[in-house]
Amino acid sequence: MQIAILLFDRFTALDAVGPYETLGRAPDAELVFVAEEAGPVRTDQGNLAITADRTLAEVPSPDIVIVPGGPGQSAQMENEALLSWLRTADTTSTWTTSVCTGSLLLAAAGLLEGRRATSHWLALDELPRFGAKPTGDRVVFDAKYVTAAGVSSGIDMGLTLLGRIAGDDQARAIQLATEYDPQPPYDAGSPEKAPAHLVAWFRENSRFVLR
Amino acid sequence: MQIAILLFDRFTALDAVGPYETLGRAPDAELVFVAEEAGPVRTDQGNLAITADRTLAEVPSPDIVIVPGGPGQSAQMENEALLSWLRTADTTSTWTTSVCTGSLLLAAAGLLEGRRATSHWLALDELPRFGAKPTGDRVVFDAKYVTAAGVSSGIDMGLTLLGRIAGDDQARAIQLATEYDPQPPYDAGSPEKAPAHLVAWFRENSRFVLR
Repeated sequence: MQIAILLFDRFTALDAVGPYETLGRAPDAELVFVAEEAGPVRTDQGNLAITADRTLAEVPSPDIVIVPGGPGQSAQMENEALLSWLRTADTTSTWTTSVCTGSLLLAAAGLLEGRRATSHWLALDELPRFGAKPTGDRVVFDAKYVTAAGVSSGIDMGLTLLGRIAGDDQARAIQLATEYDPQPPYDAGSPEKAPAHLVAWFRENSRFVLR
Repeated sequence: MQIAILLFDRFTALDAVGPYETLGRAPDAELVFVAEEAGPVRTDQGNLAITADRTLAEVPSPDIVIVPGGPGQSAQMENEALLSWLRTADTTSTWTTSVCTGSLLLAAAGLLEGRRATSHWLALDELPRFGAKPTGDRVVFDAKYVTAAGVSSGIDMGLTLLGRIAGDDQARAIQLATEYDPQPPYDAGSPEKAPAHLVAWFRENSRFVLR
C-alpha cells in the first residue's frame, strides 16, 4: 500500500507528520514524501525542512494521497503541474485525503465538487467556490475523499483511516504506541471554544495566517 | 529566545514536530534543528528526513533544549559527544526538555538525578537506573526540567511551556491556530485505557518498539 504525502514550499509540518506517524505505521505501508522536485522542502516557519525523496513523476499512482496545508497552499492553487498530478493520482487512488488547507488544493483540482469536506476553520468559507460543501466536522469522509480540519486534526484522520483500512485493533495499537491520550492545557482548539477576542483576531488577520 | 531541537538517527518525527509546531511559534522564538552533523537526519521509519541546519558545536547555549525520543535513542546513550553537548547546553539553558524516550538521554547525561520525570510508558522503568523518579503524568515539570510522555505528548508539553513563557493567551492562540481540539476515534492512548492484550503485546515486544 503506497502512501504519498505531497510537500510544497511553506507547508505546515504537523499537517504532514500527523498522518505520517499514524496511518504511515500501517503494517503494509510504503510511505513516500513527494514534491515537484526531490530534496528538502521548507515549512511555513522556514526553520524546518523535510526531504522529498521522490518527484511527482516518480510516484504517479499511490494508493493513498495525503495533501497537507499551510500558508504555501495559496501559491499552489494555480500550479498546473501539481494539480495535474493530483487529478491523475486520484484516478487510481483508493483514498484521496487532505489536512488543513490541503483540501483547497484538492478542491482546486476539481476533486471535491459536490462533496462534503472540511479545512482549517479560517478557510472553510473558500470551499464553496470550488463546489465543495463545507462542514465543521474534524474528519470528513465522502466516498474515498477524506478531509481533516486544521493542522493537528491529521492525527485524528490518520487513526480513523487506519482503523478503516487495517482494523480497529491496529489503530488502537498505534494510538497506544504514540501515547495519543491528549491532555491539552487549555480548551481553545476551535472557534467555538476559544476566547472570542482570539477568534476575532484570527478572522481579521486570516490572510497573514493562511498565506 | 533560541530553541534547539536535537536530532539523531532513528528519532521519532512527531516527538520533535509537536513542540516545534507549538512552542516554536512563540513570538520571539528562533528555533533551530541541530545534530552532530548538519544535513538530513532519518526517522525510525526511515522514510522521513528532517534537515539539521546546524551542528551541535554551532549551537552551544540555546535558551531551550528539546530532546525527542525514538528507537534511535538507545544507540545514543553512550555517545559522549551528544551527552557532553547536553550537559554544556544545560548549564546555561532556561528550560531543558524532552519528549518520549528523550528523557533517557537527559538522564544518561546526569541531568535528571533526583528529579521527577516521565518518558514513553514502555520506558518509565528505565528512569530509576539514572536516579530519576518516574511519574505517570503526561507532562512533568521539576524546576527547569520538563519531560513529556510518549510521542504525541510533545504537543501538550509545547503548549504548556508556551503558556508559562509567553502567557495563557498566546498559548490559546496557538492552540486555536493549530486547531488542537483532539477527537481521537478510540480511547486507547495509555496503558490504563488500551485493551489489555495490546498493552501485553507491547510489553513483550518493547525492545522491538523502543530499540
